[in-house]
Amino acid sequence: MCVSCQHTIHRASHHSGWSRDFAPALRAEPGSTIHFECLDASGGQLGPGATAADLAGLDFGRINPVSGPVFVEGAEPGDALKVSFRRFVPSGTGWTANIPGFGLLTDQFPEPALHNWTYDPATMAPALYGPKARVPLKPFAGTVGVAPAEAGHHSVVPPRRVGGNLDIRDLAAGTVLYLPVEVAGALFSIGDTHAAQGDGEVCGTAIESRMDVELTLDLVKGANLKSPRFTTDGPVTRHLDGAGYEATTGIGPDLMTAARESVSRMIDLLAAEHGMAPVDAYMLCSVCGDLRISEIVDQPNWVVSFMFPRIVLS
Amino acid sequence: MCVSCQHTIHRASHHSGWSRDFAPALRAEPGSTIHFECLDASGGQLGPGATAADLAGLDFGRINPVSGPVFVEGAEPGDALKVSFRRFVPSGTGWTANIPGFGLLTDQFPEPALHNWTYDPATMAPALYGPKARVPLKPFAGTVGVAPAEAGHHSVVPPRRVGGNLDIRDLAAGTVLYLPVEVAGALFSIGDTHAAQGDGEVCGTAIESRMDVELTLDLVKGANLKSPRFTTDGPVTRHLDGAGYEATTGIGPDLMTAARESVSRMIDLLAAEHGMAPVDAYMLCSVCGDLRISEIVDQPNWVVSFMFPRIVLS
Repeated sequence: MCVSCQHTIHRASHHSGWSRDFAPALRAEPGSTIHFECLDASGGQLGPGATAADLAGLDFGRINPVSGPVFVEGAEPGDALKVSFRRFVPSGTGWTANIPGFGLLTDQFPEPALHNWTYDPATMAPALYGPKARVPLKPFAGTVGVAPAEAGHHSVVPPRRVGGNLDIRDLAAGTVLYLPVEVAGALFSIGDTHAAQGDGEVCGTAIESRMDVELTLDLVKGANLKSPRFTTDGPVTRHLDGAGYEATTGIGPDLMTAARESVSRMIDLLAAEHGMAPVDAYMLCSVCGDLRISEIVDQPNWVVSFMFPRIVLS
Repeated sequence: MCVSCQHTIHRASHHSGWSRDFAPALRAEPGSTIHFECLDASGGQLGPGATAADLAGLDFGRINPVSGPVFVEGAEPGDALKVSFRRFVPSGTGWTANIPGFGLLTDQFPEPALHNWTYDPATMAPALYGPKARVPLKPFAGTVGVAPAEAGHHSVVPPRRVGGNLDIRDLAAGTVLYLPVEVAGALFSIGDTHAAQGDGEVCGTAIESRMDVELTLDLVKGANLKSPRFTTDGPVTRHLDGAGYEATTGIGPDLMTAARESVSRMIDLLAAEHGMAPVDAYMLCSVCGDLRISEIVDQPNWVVSFMFPRIVLS
């Protein structure tokens, strides 16, 4: 229960994709604190008993539903919507999948794979992954945004300058996100909640987990942001970094190729040193490993490092 | 003084670029701990009294000298050279430059700029940058590598699968780096020492600072590495993350463009909120801000975040 919330957006008030024409689920004054019931990224299609075989039957039209939209009174194009994340209330179950055709290394992993997670939503203790790995949790919403100015219906998959499927792991409780407003009322929605994710979300999915979100919406008039920005109230990797990292690199003139190589080499390392099946290592990398650009200036070759937190296998 | 070192490579034993034909400065047994005297990235051309005008006169043939090479007895192609960084002994002075034609935003910053740093090498307290900013220090060597198999002389500027100008900020004391060996003896060299750098090294230079390095060289026979990898013995951002981050984003189908946009927007933010000259903000971002790939799977748009540590301006 959210004692400080003035409003609740129920799970049933969700939509797929983005449009300036969606009818608001709520009209709220700036400064309102709102409780959002969010669905998981499958929209409830993958429950705790799901198997890899169920991935073939997914209705992609129902993927990444977001709860909303909220019309914020007084919001106008050129303003920024200030989103203060107060609390995430996780459900205790989740899933991570390798969905054929989706992910950084889709050419190397053509077969579907699914891992079902359970975790304690009260303690948020690290979640077990097989006999060896324990993944620290840090909940956030993968998809958070407002309606774009352009007419029509816009896919939920790509993020845009107005936000959307940002999948920024650092948008946890305590973080303040600023989104560019492009339509009257902003039309804010949120969903795709994750119990944990690494920077990059390399296999295409995180610990996809239904949860509720409490946040405050406010306005910064005339901010004229070009894309989302955010402020964290503290460190962002301390749940992961205590034991240091194993890191692999990709080096070359194309950042995408370098990123792919760095992740591929980490999968090889985890398979060789910990006896993991490559697809299991790939999904593990997605929920806890971080893609970093180590250097982007030493022409013509850039260095991308993939950082795997050693605490997960300690 | 390095009490555990068996050898010293003096500053005079340096070379420019990489070649399998360079004569060794030392032949050392695996397991040897060696003290390297390193020059700064200008090879001594930019001293404490240098100005931006001196950048036009830089002899680029003398840039990024590395001390070495060390022939490691028994090293053969296919092995990995294990480099254990023991200690960095910094000099207390350094420089950061915007060198025209070099850096992530060279089109936006065509004019030369130079900042001279002083810091206390005993305490390694954060270094002052103008009246407002204090940059936490974490020394490492930007250039560390072995000779490539290909004949001829190879520029020191780009990193390669055998290492070189990696500019990986996390290669600090306590880290173990593994480099693929491609020639007999490996021919290891190191230089380009930095007192601090952010992930990306976005303006092209770090806090470039002459220092000495103590490290141990060992072999992993038949490792068959495809590119460098490393293991850190603990967290890698705790010198920066205590007060959280300001973050800006770039979103789109090209990682390079997204990276450029994220950095450019942070410069705008620092200029607007802290009254910094844009070029000063650019150089500050290079020495303490981090480029991260937040998501790389939500086709067709990726998210790159630039994370600026708030502690620097607290």
